[in-house]
Amino acid sequence: MIIILKRNPDQSKVDIFVEEFRQKGLDINYSKGETTTIIGLIGDTLSLDMDLLRANEIVEDVKRITEPFKFANRKFHAEDAQILVGEGAFGAGKFGVIAGPCSVESYEQIIEVAKRVKAAGAKFLRGGAFKPRTSPYAFQGLKAEGIEMLLEAKKVTGLPIVTELISINHLDLFDEVDVIQVGARNMQNFEMLRQLGKLNKPILLKRGNASSIEELLMSAEYILAGGNSNVILCERGIRTFETATRNTLDISAVPLIKRLSHLPIIVDPSHATGISALVKPLAKASVVSGADGLIIEVHPMPSQALCDGAQSVTPNEFDAIMADVKLLCQMENKAL
Amino acid sequence: MIIILKRNPDQSKVDIFVEEFRQKGLDINYSKGETTTIIGLIGDTLSLDMDLLRANEIVEDVKRITEPFKFANRKFHAEDAQILVGEGAFGAGKFGVIAGPCSVESYEQIIEVAKRVKAAGAKFLRGGAFKPRTSPYAFQGLKAEGIEMLLEAKKVTGLPIVTELISINHLDLFDEVDVIQVGARNMQNFEMLRQLGKLNKPILLKRGNASSIEELLMSAEYILAGGNSNVILCERGIRTFETATRNTLDISAVPLIKRLSHLPIIVDPSHATGISALVKPLAKASVVSGADGLIIEVHPMPSQALCDGAQSVTPNEFDAIMADVKLLCQMENKAL
Amino acid sequence: MIIILKRNPDQSKVDIFVEEFRQKGLDINYSKGETTTIIGLIGDTLSLDMDLLRANEIVEDVKRITEPFKFANRKFHAEDAQILVGEGAFGAGKFGVIAGPCSVESYEQIIEVAKRVKAAGAKFLRGGAFKPRTSPYAFQGLKAEGIEMLLEAKKVTGLPIVTELISINHLDLFDEVDVIQVGARNMQNFEMLRQLGKLNKPILLKRGNASSIEELLMSAEYILAGGNSNVILCERGIRTFETATRNTLDISAVPLIKRLSHLPIIVDPSHATGISALVKPLAKASVVSGADGLIIEVHPMPSQALCDGAQSVTPNEFDAIMADVKLLCQMENKAL
Amino acid sequence: MIIILKRNPDQSKVDIFVEEFRQKGLDINYSKGETTTIIGLIGDTLSLDMDLLRANEIVEDVKRITEPFKFANRKFHAEDAQILVGEGAFGAGKFGVIAGPCSVESYEQIIEVAKRVKAAGAKFLRGGAFKPRTSPYAFQGLKAEGIEMLLEAKKVTGLPIVTELISINHLDLFDEVDVIQVGARNMQNFEMLRQLGKLNKPILLKRGNASSIEELLMSAEYILAGGNSNVILCERGIRTFETATRNTLDISAVPLIKRLSHLPIIVDPSHATGISALVKPLAKASVVSGADGLIIEVHPMPSQALCDGAQSVTPNEFDAIMADVKLLCQMENKAL
Repeated sequence: MIIILKRNPDQSKVDIFVEEFRQKGLDINYSKGETTTIIGLIGDTLSLDMDLLRANEIVEDVKRITEPFKFANRKFHAEDAQILVGEGAFGAGKFGVIAGPCSVESYEQIIEVAKRVKAAGAKFLRGGAFKPRTSPYAFQGLKAEGIEMLLEAKKVTGLPIVTELISINHLDLFDEVDVIQVGARNMQNFEMLRQLGKLNKPILLKRGNASSIEELLMSAEYILAGGNSNVILCERGIRTFETATRNTLDISAVPLIKRLSHLPIIVDPSHATGISALVKPLAKASVVSGADGLIIEVHPMPSQALCDGAQSVTPNEFDAIMADVKLLCQMENKAL
Repeated sequence: MIIILKRNPDQSKVDIFVEEFRQKGLDINYSKGETTTIIGLIGDTLSLDMDLLRANEIVEDVKRITEPFKFANRKFHAEDAQILVGEGAFGAGKFGVIAGPCSVESYEQIIEVAKRVKAAGAKFLRGGAFKPRTSPYAFQGLKAEGIEMLLEAKKVTGLPIVTELISINHLDLFDEVDVIQVGARNMQNFEMLRQLGKLNKPILLKRGNASSIEELLMSAEYILAGGNSNVILCERGIRTFETATRNTLDISAVPLIKRLSHLPIIVDPSHATGISALVKPLAKASVVSGADGLIIEVHPMPSQALCDGAQSVTPNEFDAIMADVKLLCQMENKAL
Repeated sequence: MIIILKRNPDQSKVDIFVEEFRQKGLDINYSKGETTTIIGLIGDTLSLDMDLLRANEIVEDVKRITEPFKFANRKFHAEDAQILVGEGAFGAGKFGVIAGPCSVESYEQIIEVAKRVKAAGAKFLRGGAFKPRTSPYAFQGLKAEGIEMLLEAKKVTGLPIVTELISINHLDLFDEVDVIQVGARNMQNFEMLRQLGKLNKPILLKRGNASSIEELLMSAEYILAGGNSNVILCERGIRTFETATRNTLDISAVPLIKRLSHLPIIVDPSHATGISALVKPLAKASVVSGADGLIIEVHPMPSQALCDGAQSVTPNEFDAIMADVKLLCQMENKAL
Repeated sequence: MIIILKRNPDQSKVDIFVEEFRQKGLDINYSKGETTTIIGLIGDTLSLDMDLLRANEIVEDVKRITEPFKFANRKFHAEDAQILVGEGAFGAGKFGVIAGPCSVESYEQIIEVAKRVKAAGAKFLRGGAFKPRTSPYAFQGLKAEGIEMLLEAKKVTGLPIVTELISINHLDLFDEVDVIQVGARNMQNFEMLRQLGKLNKPILLKRGNASSIEELLMSAEYILAGGNSNVILCERGIRTFETATRNTLDISAVPLIKRLSHLPIIVDPSHATGISALVKPLAKASVVSGADGLIIEVHPMPSQALCDGAQSVTPNEFDAIMADVKLLCQMENKAL
């Protein structure tokens, strides 16, 4: 960390300031120029609060040289991580496709979709049981019953299941869930992240719609620092001024995160724009930009879906998407 | 609600579509023009999902005429709401000022600040006990002990206390807390909102940094629909492209929310920009734009604060802010 | 266009309001329900100002059903447009690659780059002669001399040249330029667009960094309505809250624009993020999401570039990018 | 300027790198620590391109300590600037109010408005003659004839006039215009800024809707560096994700710019949100946050305005706004 001091700071204050760092076990690189004095701190600076340092009256500015995350940092984990779930996997040459309806609506619906997405090549079944909805008057999911139906579908098809947790108090209902999804709205629910850090189960961590890439990695750090290294990141669109699409898919986040972190990163092309016709081109773009997987909403009759119908593709459309995804994965040397 | 159909829709599908609304008890205003067919729905359309309707193959677009919230809607509550807490109040001519440190750090600190802000005219004491922090390595608050200290400060000064809840599981620690704050990151933690709707205690609901004004009101609706009408809204800055300030204070939200809702709305000029020198001008702007109160971070030694020091003002600076706020409140016919 | 009236409007005002539309030759679809009155306008509503209509005291809201552009609208031009330039082309099955340095710096530099990008498969040479720079102290381009050098490079390699116009007063220097680029900052320089509409030369119109997709198409409409139908659109990243990349590439804009318009759309993966290591994955993503071409910055020694070095790739890196682009174009049935 | 080098850089490259700065006349503060090497540059670093420096293979990061503008920088101009125009002025204790219609529509209209706004206390008349419009089909202004009408209104009322320049080629029509407005869309039309730098006439420079505060000041720098020191800045709302208002007024920009620059800054509360009912509260907020003036759209019959009617206030509403503005200016010790 580099601390740039204001011009002509009070030397006694500088001494006290520097001494505090020394007592924290940090090495000091002190450089006094004619007009600028710079303090370099070497050691574990993760717990230093940049805002606090900036508030000090002798400080002009503060700059991190290393990222504020450690467990999620590629610098300390050169090899790609691979998260194995059932017969599928994410990362290190493995491309995982999760598919299914926005919400579980009935036994028949989830079984039908599960069979179709499995036949098309998906290795994981998604389906919302607990739904976070902007309006208190909107359908909130089948809850415990929805999870039961997902488990039935798992029995029938063998597909591991992925579903969203919206309150840590529901955790006992998730015992047999294979991958726990943390939704965009809970990406900074730090109490939840902390609890999930104690599990030994894959966590699908979706980026908040106004969260930076660094904040996403810091939220992953909460889980990893707790001891659970099974984190799958997910880019699902951010909120911008453009209203033609519900969100703006930040496709650059995929190759950038691959450089910053060893964790797998997948893309949700359905939530990214809210427009089903864009799912295919964005799914393809995700593969070639380096993503380790996809999560796609598939519904037998999108116009009858109880939520997010506008962004769901039909099973037939999903077949066509998977045909292209397979070809591109081959080119990218990734195994589905 | 207005539904605009695509050109030349299949009439049998239109009939089925319309019949569904009729069965939900809605009145239908059906208008078929040469090129455009429009369906007007009259009645309680709150539970209709616009995205779902848009996904229907015969639909071109859907438009709400009334807002999707009812309990938070000024149309149904012409009079300003007033939330009374101790000797202070928010709304309907009453201007409430909440002040105190970002986090409670020690008994001495909180008592000192409490006395100073009370002397300056604040009617409520704030202080974080549970702190949501982007980094797992940052100070996370004194937790239960912090609440104890706040209660001590309340005993000494008589000021009601305001503090943030970050997990619904901590609720029993908040029995004697006067106003429960829902932070920006939890604005769409719907499980938490639902629980708070069952209490009979004022809730300070902060706007998420990427949440629209409508979404803020929908989150208030969760609490109100649950039976708790004591909601105070708070504008605290939104995330934009501008990086010179931490957030961008959306001052227009204040007069706009006063038109849309009868609920009191206060402003947090400290988090809005993260720069202590801007707190005073923004506090003044808040008063004259129609806000019903302020929440301001005050710390005896900002450069030593354990969090958010850069945005905290000193007790002396707070005195100066309050002098101006009092004058402007007088002009606005609001009682502090 | 649909106009929704306020409840119980003054009938005499409604009559005057409706009569005005009738006099403009529009057909009226008038529908009065119990609570809602709706006016549908059929005919050429392009020149109606929605804001003005909304300002009328009897109006609740106004909604366009058709897009506010005509010449740029796919509804009126079902076939993809194709813009031919020299031996290359954009659109309708043709994929055009433009490459070259951010700015022309010397005769040797531009010739070297031109040869290399041609060998790699680019069909067009780019190079800035007039550079719009945020700072008045930054390098502003070689101007007329830069255009001379580009024309020399064209002679040597046969590559048509693409360069940016920053003032309509420089137009006479652009006589032999093959494609005139309108930069992001001039996308809404309507006087310039109007002048370019009088030419019979391809215009590369870059999206403004805070312009919506609709605004981009409206700017294209200025050129097309003037009589010049040779417009190539370019997505080059928008400004969002994310600071890890200079801009956020809005990849969804590509397939969305293909649906809204028949005009070719290309992508600039260099300006999109400002990070050279991301150019390759984003170039690939562009091809498979449906783009009709690419514009890529290539510099022999990026660290010595006089502008935008951080986002330029070397000729060797460009070779590798083109190898992948060719493969993907084959898959997409597009001819380079 | 601080340059942080990568770990263990090639010493010969460092030497060459440092030598280049020395030859530019900069003083070097070289500090080599165990893990981090830092180069401090002292002197005139304005013309150094940070992106270029970052592109160098031995560089980790670069950081400016001083702002990249000089003429617009308060550090070099401690005293507030004051721009005098006729009997009014902006800055250094003077508060200037500009008012008038969005566009000049007729002789009668502009005279009527001019008389009313003068009576209410405005010292300057605005009115658009050349209008930049998103749609080529929208009203584009009365052009030269509009300027004639403004000059007539000036004769009748004595009010200096403010109107927008959209092409440098129209400049000869602006000879008698008192203040030339550069609109948000032309804030980075650097060719225009350069020409305006050669005049000796006040320039009203509006912030682009996606331009940062630093970019606004850099655009002012273009004009100032050219020799014209009469620049009035204007905050008029930025583009964010919030759609309830047309733009989001960045009120924090006002006190922040007062700290960074000595130039006067005024606020346009009309364009900031596009909603006439919000003009009054935002005008008041502007005064108390430290603005040096206001520019407000006033139209005798907003619902009949040829542009932007939705955001215009009536002359009566303007009277009420001015009553409050006067009171607040008194409190702020500013003379209208």
